[in-house]
Amino acid sequence: MVIEPLDAAFHPRSIAVVGASGNPYSIGHSFVEHLVNYGYRGRIYPVTPHWSEVLGFRAYSALRDIPEPVDYVICCLPASRVPDLLRECPERGVRVVHLFTGRFSETGREDTARLEKEILNQARELGIRLIGPNCMGIYHPREGIAFGYDFPTEPGKLGMFLQSGGASTEFIYYASLRGIRFSKVVSYGNALDLNEADILEYFSQDDETEIIASYIEGVKDGRRFIRTLGRTTPIKPVIILKAGRGSAGAKAAFSHTAAMAGSLKILETAIKQAGAIQSRTLEDMIDLAVSFYFLPPLTGTRVGIVGGGGGKSVLSADEWEEAGFDVAPLPREIEEEVRRIMPELWWGWIRNPVDISILPEEARMADFSGNILRMMAQSEHFDLVVANITVGAPFSKTLLAAHVKREVEGIIEVAKAGKKPIAVVLNTGTLGLEDFDDPRWRCLAEGMPKLVAARIPVYSSASQAASAIIRLVNYYRRRQALP
Amino acid sequence: MVIEPLDAAFHPRSIAVVGASGNPYSIGHSFVEHLVNYGYRGRIYPVTPHWSEVLGFRAYSALRDIPEPVDYVICCLPASRVPDLLRECPERGVRVVHLFTGRFSETGREDTARLEKEILNQARELGIRLIGPNCMGIYHPREGIAFGYDFPTEPGKLGMFLQSGGASTEFIYYASLRGIRFSKVVSYGNALDLNEADILEYFSQDDETEIIASYIEGVKDGRRFIRTLGRTTPIKPVIILKAGRGSAGAKAAFSHTAAMAGSLKILETAIKQAGAIQSRTLEDMIDLAVSFYFLPPLTGTRVGIVGGGGGKSVLSADEWEEAGFDVAPLPREIEEEVRRIMPELWWGWIRNPVDISILPEEARMADFSGNILRMMAQSEHFDLVVANITVGAPFSKTLLAAHVKREVEGIIEVAKAGKKPIAVVLNTGTLGLEDFDDPRWRCLAEGMPKLVAARIPVYSSASQAASAIIRLVNYYRRRQALP
Repeated sequence: MVIEPLDAAFHPRSIAVVGASGNPYSIGHSFVEHLVNYGYRGRIYPVTPHWSEVLGFRAYSALRDIPEPVDYVICCLPASRVPDLLRECPERGVRVVHLFTGRFSETGREDTARLEKEILNQARELGIRLIGPNCMGIYHPREGIAFGYDFPTEPGKLGMFLQSGGASTEFIYYASLRGIRFSKVVSYGNALDLNEADILEYFSQDDETEIIASYIEGVKDGRRFIRTLGRTTPIKPVIILKAGRGSAGAKAAFSHTAAMAGSLKILETAIKQAGAIQSRTLEDMIDLAVSFYFLPPLTGTRVGIVGGGGGKSVLSADEWEEAGFDVAPLPREIEEEVRRIMPELWWGWIRNPVDISILPEEARMADFSGNILRMMAQSEHFDLVVANITVGAPFSKTLLAAHVKREVEGIIEVAKAGKKPIAVVLNTGTLGLEDFDDPRWRCLAEGMPKLVAARIPVYSSASQAASAIIRLVNYYRRRQALP
Repeated sequence: MVIEPLDAAFHPRSIAVVGASGNPYSIGHSFVEHLVNYGYRGRIYPVTPHWSEVLGFRAYSALRDIPEPVDYVICCLPASRVPDLLRECPERGVRVVHLFTGRFSETGREDTARLEKEILNQARELGIRLIGPNCMGIYHPREGIAFGYDFPTEPGKLGMFLQSGGASTEFIYYASLRGIRFSKVVSYGNALDLNEADILEYFSQDDETEIIASYIEGVKDGRRFIRTLGRTTPIKPVIILKAGRGSAGAKAAFSHTAAMAGSLKILETAIKQAGAIQSRTLEDMIDLAVSFYFLPPLTGTRVGIVGGGGGKSVLSADEWEEAGFDVAPLPREIEEEVRRIMPELWWGWIRNPVDISILPEEARMADFSGNILRMMAQSEHFDLVVANITVGAPFSKTLLAAHVKREVEGIIEVAKAGKKPIAVVLNTGTLGLEDFDDPRWRCLAEGMPKLVAARIPVYSSASQAASAIIRLVNYYRRRQALP
């Protein structure tokens, strides 16, 4: 019942952008431009009485003037004109209308809330499904549909539904820097018709989507959502960020998507019991998505950590342990191997985390850290290995850059061998433009995309990495324990 | 008693680097090179039997061969040779020896621990004070002394003492990107002689130091440290990161600086009761330092937030409120002002946080966000204003870049007017090298240093900002309440 209209929205043979425009700064222009930019192969119909063509496509004065069927409508009209548009839809065979149009119930005004309700009733009578209103709609790279500029064109396995368009674009931009690609993203705003439960149900069955993440301000159909969630989490991880938690946040959420907060405690408990992974900030949700995207179904907590000086080692031990990991001692085999290859080093002093700074210069040059990372990755005593990359070594910038380059290459080699899940902690810093001419920072900006291209999860800090990955472990442990 | 030797260490008229070298990759070369690079104006004496000169300075075979008095010695010799060096010190009038030399008690071996103890006894007999061993020593930009490459040459007001050299350099690099400059930094390793209590006492009286931050693995003189802390916090904020908290971390701390963990609970409680600001990660300590560096003594919690779309607004409200801030409603004056300048906007719908995305294009173009930020900064209803800068707007990259540029300029103008403390949340992302050619990211890398130059605290996320700033508020409230 819900699969069919969403399938039509994700795979439309033709799209009409109503309220299209030749003005490149208008949103009605952007939606047409995106279809061109992302290579949408169906037919594109700009609808506007003010322009004869938009981006080379013939423009129609009204939807009804289009001579062929239209599967999907993107509506950029003002709210008051939506009812007239909907009336034209059945004749053109429109299945789904995405209402970019805002200023409905979220304004808090009675008249616009009433109009919204009338539109829902009208859509139901006409057999049209709605996405939104007050949202950005669909990003489906495989079909060449998008709602923002410069999103990745290649598809991936993360499916998302978010009530906020801004949170959607922000997530897509920052997460794509870290290697994440998307199956389908829906920005669904006020959820007047198609709601969180519908979209979750669709994603749970969508073959293209292996991981699901969601930003929710309020639930429209809580019972069905939780029920669907409970059925989905045993087969796909579902990350949920519930926003609008405090009193100011709840008010902001109402102004944003007319979301009603309901009882946060009850909702959060239900989400947790349904087996979803909970998140409280967008940055954390990105860390979680990176973890599920690039790490295998990890259920062990024994972590081996290499890299950085003494302080880094101590702090890493604290941060991984405090998150719930077991910073296990080095096994005898590794101790013996270290003794063999570097007898002068072995005073029973090398530990997990491995403090690289205590090694003599020759050991560093001989890529001792790469070797020990490899040993840890091959050892059965660890479930996960972590490489710290830091600029805090007492080297000149050129030496440091060479060192970081070699570390990055070593990590990629170990990752390629595929013996063990690997994570990297690398803080690229808050760089200004000219910092990129400095080899100390430039080497991080060079290393980062290489690690990302090698499908290695990279995090800005140990605490962020550990906090995300322990939730992955807990998710897969729960799933493993299911009958 | 402790001021005098530390004064000698910070203001030496001459420095001998013992174990100096002409090999540019050796640490004994680096220490000489740093004195040159940072413009140290006292006399520099490399000491090494293997080179006749180092970086143009005549090298001496032994300390005793130097014809003039030496105030301060940086010792890079192996551990076994330290006693001989110390014996030569009194004759040259040496007051303080910094032992870069490691492999003492931190190795866990009985013989090296015994040697360390003997060295302490010897130093006491000879009337020489020691920094270290197993540490990087002193960074004092005003005197041109440093232990790492590419530290800022201009001095600042943050004084630090850290047991880890790597944590020191890492902190200095990342924090200096965010505008922090240092009065004096001491990496003090095993704290064999001069310890945390001594250095804190020095910093508490040091005019150059207005804010103090410390990374501690273990305390040598806990009672005196806590007593000194209690006397210092009413006059200067002291940020303390206690590392080596868990069992793996405590072991790592022992291997690192021979630090004995003691009871974490007792120590943490005492630190808290003494009025210090506690931190658990280096990244968080940087956020705290940025807050104390650039914000005034803030004691109110009413925060006004502008910028970003609806999702950003909702999440900001949650994150600031959950940290303990009051995301207060817009006051009547601002509502009226908004109604006056943009009557079509006012449906009682603009809230705090101000969701910029609901504004019509004209409002954005008219720099509505800059205007409302200014109004908030001028209003008595807010104690702090926060500007969110985000890439998550539905603009093309060139339009976004122009928008961000204008936002940055607007924020700097408001900050310059100086009516209210201001903080910026700006996630520069984990950029690869080529991302800097993309205007969407480039504008952040351009904006960041401008904000930093304007002495505005910038944070990567709302939660990090709020968590740091609420501790600043609590610190100043506590201080205000003192008799």
